[in-house]
Amino acid sequence: MVELLKARINSYNSVEVTDPCTLSLPQTGDFKRVAPISVRGFEERLWFSLHKWKKEGRKGVFIEISREHCELIPVAIRAGFEFHHAEGDYVMLCAWLQDPHENKLPPGPVHFIGVGGFVVRPRAGVINPDRKNHSDYELLVIKELSGPSANLSNFWKLPGGLADQHEDIKDAVMREIKEECGIDTEFGRLCVIQEAHHTSAASGASRKGATDMYCICALTPKDPDQEIVIQETELAAARWMPLDEYLSLPFYSRENTAYFKMMQAAADVALGNAPGLEVGSYDLGFGRGVKHTLLSAAGAENRLELVTAKL
Amino acid sequence: MVELLKARINSYNSVEVTDPCTLSLPQTGDFKRVAPISVRGFEERLWFSLHKWKKEGRKGVFIEISREHCELIPVAIRAGFEFHHAEGDYVMLCAWLQDPHENKLPPGPVHFIGVGGFVVRPRAGVINPDRKNHSDYELLVIKELSGPSANLSNFWKLPGGLADQHEDIKDAVMREIKEECGIDTEFGRLCVIQEAHHTSAASGASRKGATDMYCICALTPKDPDQEIVIQETELAAARWMPLDEYLSLPFYSRENTAYFKMMQAAADVALGNAPGLEVGSYDLGFGRGVKHTLLSAAGAENRLELVTAKL
Repeated sequence: MVELLKARINSYNSVEVTDPCTLSLPQTGDFKRVAPISVRGFEERLWFSLHKWKKEGRKGVFIEISREHCELIPVAIRAGFEFHHAEGDYVMLCAWLQDPHENKLPPGPVHFIGVGGFVVRPRAGVINPDRKNHSDYELLVIKELSGPSANLSNFWKLPGGLADQHEDIKDAVMREIKEECGIDTEFGRLCVIQEAHHTSAASGASRKGATDMYCICALTPKDPDQEIVIQETELAAARWMPLDEYLSLPFYSRENTAYFKMMQAAADVALGNAPGLEVGSYDLGFGRGVKHTLLSAAGAENRLELVTAKL
Repeated sequence: MVELLKARINSYNSVEVTDPCTLSLPQTGDFKRVAPISVRGFEERLWFSLHKWKKEGRKGVFIEISREHCELIPVAIRAGFEFHHAEGDYVMLCAWLQDPHENKLPPGPVHFIGVGGFVVRPRAGVINPDRKNHSDYELLVIKELSGPSANLSNFWKLPGGLADQHEDIKDAVMREIKEECGIDTEFGRLCVIQEAHHTSAASGASRKGATDMYCICALTPKDPDQEIVIQETELAAARWMPLDEYLSLPFYSRENTAYFKMMQAAADVALGNAPGLEVGSYDLGFGRGVKHTLLSAAGAENRLELVTAKL
């Protein structure tokens, strides 16, 4: 008698396989050891289960296969599964059991969150900086050691990088600035988001088919005199640059281009001339007691307060 | 003599395998037929290539394996590869060739972009709607047929869904509103973004490890009198609801919770009481002539113009 794969039915009437036979053995805590399954044994149980789920009218099936059981992947593919998403040590596969034209399974994630920090301080010696005057301010900028921009001459960019898994934009941008430049910051506002869609040919294997959401955020240094400590493995240089000089660099000064608009928007928010989106953390209000982070136009009347340089 | 896998070196000194032996055969256009590779033959070529790339000082390796060659996945896993990302018909694997503590390979995408449409019109019969008075306006709302909210009583939500691959936020929200309610809209502004991190236990297999960026956008109907046509396969109902009634629903009216803040922010932007981020499309300014879409605080002084209802 073939045994059905253990599974749960979700609120969309789809099956999520929870059977341990395809999963990594837990490394810690209380667990029951799971006897290894043969490729043949898995194939029998999968086909038997799919037949039953289809008869029951289930819509789709999700199954996770860990790296250590990767010899089961071809079995699932032969049974009609497609890849859904993957990371590190597992791949998630899915199959639609009903009319293929009606396939409503949600796709896997294809977005990256990139963050750039627009960190501004009043220029040393300027006593009453004028928010309308870019030359009264300095911006924290970097030069990369590798990557597509490393060989461009006089190409300075904002410190930043990719948000880690389960990392908020606010935390990601503050972490990247600290890692790359050693500067501790206060988060201000989200200034601008760029949606950049990637093909494999243009952006390489790691971005194939994905979209970067590049989020520039305005921040201020906690201590405007804190010394820059550069991340030597990734950066060629980091420095404070007069803001008007940065905005005049060739890549950022061609009017009505994306980079021009982005940097102008960031400067507007950083100097308190435009509101941007503020960040807050709130209880969801129902369900589990999880804090959710919002980047919100509410409260947008409040202007950023720039830390005044010690003179 | 074993043959090296065809590959290109990217600007981070990593290898991107371009050899057709693991890829899907192209369906159209000019191509040379590729002889199928045996599992054994692939294993030899992969190990030979890895040895050479490591000696050359390459940092990492990316290799894509299509669904039809899935029997090669265990070979790559045995050679030390991990999963990077996957979708539909392929999985991307990666391996770090140098000191594992220095692994700088970028992770795969783990973000979803969800969109919600906050579509507002002046209430029928109101001649001079007052932007400070929510009862002068109506909001387009829906009830779902399935999903976690389907069984909640009096739970109305914003039309919306997930952005497709390579789809801008602006296009996604307009598409979802059209699909779900049949209403054509003008895009206004981005009001608020919620960052919600998902585990498998809480959010199911399709969201495991991912983060939803739920973006509420303010829009107006092109024709405030256009008839609602609901998507019967997904919705139980769709209607115009007085805005003050919506904001008083239990899920949206508990002060200082995430949903309260989100809906207040959306109403503020939709009625022109807060600026939000505007959407524009711009040339990049260098490199390929691709238009990039920005959601930007620049130009935030301009208020949304609400379409006035025909009376």
